[in-house]
Amino acid sequence: MRRIKLIVAYDGTHYAGYQVQPNGNTIQAEIESVLARMHRHPVKIIASGRTDARVHALGQVIHFDTTLEMPAERFVKALNAMLPDDILVKQAEEMDDTFHARYGAKRKEYRYHIRQTEDPFRRHYAATVTYKLSLEAMRQAMERLIGTHDFTSFSVTKAEVEDRVRTIYEAEVLEMGDEIIFRFVGSGFLYNQVRIMVGTVIEVGRGKYQPADITQMLEAKDRRVAGITAPPHGLYLWNVNYEKVD
Amino acid sequence: MRRIKLIVAYDGTHYAGYQVQPNGNTIQAEIESVLARMHRHPVKIIASGRTDARVHALGQVIHFDTTLEMPAERFVKALNAMLPDDILVKQAEEMDDTFHARYGAKRKEYRYHIRQTEDPFRRHYAATVTYKLSLEAMRQAMERLIGTHDFTSFSVTKAEVEDRVRTIYEAEVLEMGDEIIFRFVGSGFLYNQVRIMVGTVIEVGRGKYQPADITQMLEAKDRRVAGITAPPHGLYLWNVNYEKVD
Repeated sequence: MRRIKLIVAYDGTHYAGYQVQPNGNTIQAEIESVLARMHRHPVKIIASGRTDARVHALGQVIHFDTTLEMPAERFVKALNAMLPDDILVKQAEEMDDTFHARYGAKRKEYRYHIRQTEDPFRRHYAATVTYKLSLEAMRQAMERLIGTHDFTSFSVTKAEVEDRVRTIYEAEVLEMGDEIIFRFVGSGFLYNQVRIMVGTVIEVGRGKYQPADITQMLEAKDRRVAGITAPPHGLYLWNVNYEKVD
Repeated sequence: MRRIKLIVAYDGTHYAGYQVQPNGNTIQAEIESVLARMHRHPVKIIASGRTDARVHALGQVIHFDTTLEMPAERFVKALNAMLPDDILVKQAEEMDDTFHARYGAKRKEYRYHIRQTEDPFRRHYAATVTYKLSLEAMRQAMERLIGTHDFTSFSVTKAEVEDRVRTIYEAEVLEMGDEIIFRFVGSGFLYNQVRIMVGTVIEVGRGKYQPADITQMLEAKDRRVAGITAPPHGLYLWNVNYEKVD
């Protein structure tokens, strides 16, 4: 069996999320169904992590083991020919069998797009925030998220993970055209963490909280002290890195 | 009765086109239904022209007559609050009753987006053309479309219009990011004319025709000599101008 790594982009608008579940179509189900047709037997895929309904990916990474003899690169065309056009395999590569899309991930980048005016063409791809926002206050808030922290205040209460300490290496606010982008690079993120951080930073931007409040929120380790959860459709899993961070 | 002019943007992906028809939802039906709710009686709207299923608009212009007393600008918020989020009223203005969205249009701009690589996020918004294309040949072909010509070769045969002479003021090829845009400004366009011009110019770009062939195609006045019709989803009605051209 050879292990294949895929880099996959998808428009999450019409999916119930990444992971297979009883009701609703998922990215995982679409890819596994095409792989099963190619292999004539079920093939299980492992992703770097789940994405929620309506969340997008530019660089989701998955792996699977194949019995097929064809060169790894050939999977790109073969899969794209059968996948729906809102899922695109961008790259396929043969890895040794120690590669693991989930446990090997060293760093993930997420981006979140917001815009200040309605645009029918961006309705599935950026959240609209019509409040007047201070970029400077949001930049200061983002800086306070950088570092190794217990992110309990920025994760869903029901999450059963014990260890909620994560490291954020980069957190910045970018402007592109008429959109504002929140960019995070971290060791990994808790369930809903990026959306809660973005929702809270936006509330700093409109003056409900001060940038310094972020530090107190981190220390409180209580979901109720942080801000709202930003909606899913502005969020993109941008890329996943498997090399050790220096 | 006061006459109101609206500038409307829409994502045409999920519509059977602009004009009301027996089967399928349309832009016109959505707007008329909201206006009827506001007015408590049917309101007929007139657009600058139809757009086909899956064709988009950034600046479609429509007009209607209202019995309501509210200031024209208020229609923007009132309509957007009730319209689906793939239709956006960008501007509303009171006009005198000689204004007519269709007969008063002096100039229209259409744009057509293509891209050379697949992108799941652009699948409804740009046509993918994977052939290698010569920008220079396409620019020369576009130049030959400029001017006053009989565009019979570039319109659908079934179209019952008698006079197929139209004037193209501008026709250029733009590059934006990883997309190529064909931009046309003209006195008006025949049914499917922009899509047939684009399909033909792309065939020049891939070397099937020479730029000079465009002139012979115009002279032939025969749809069969021009190229294919480009698909609808790359096409945008960009704006409509009502001022006299100098």
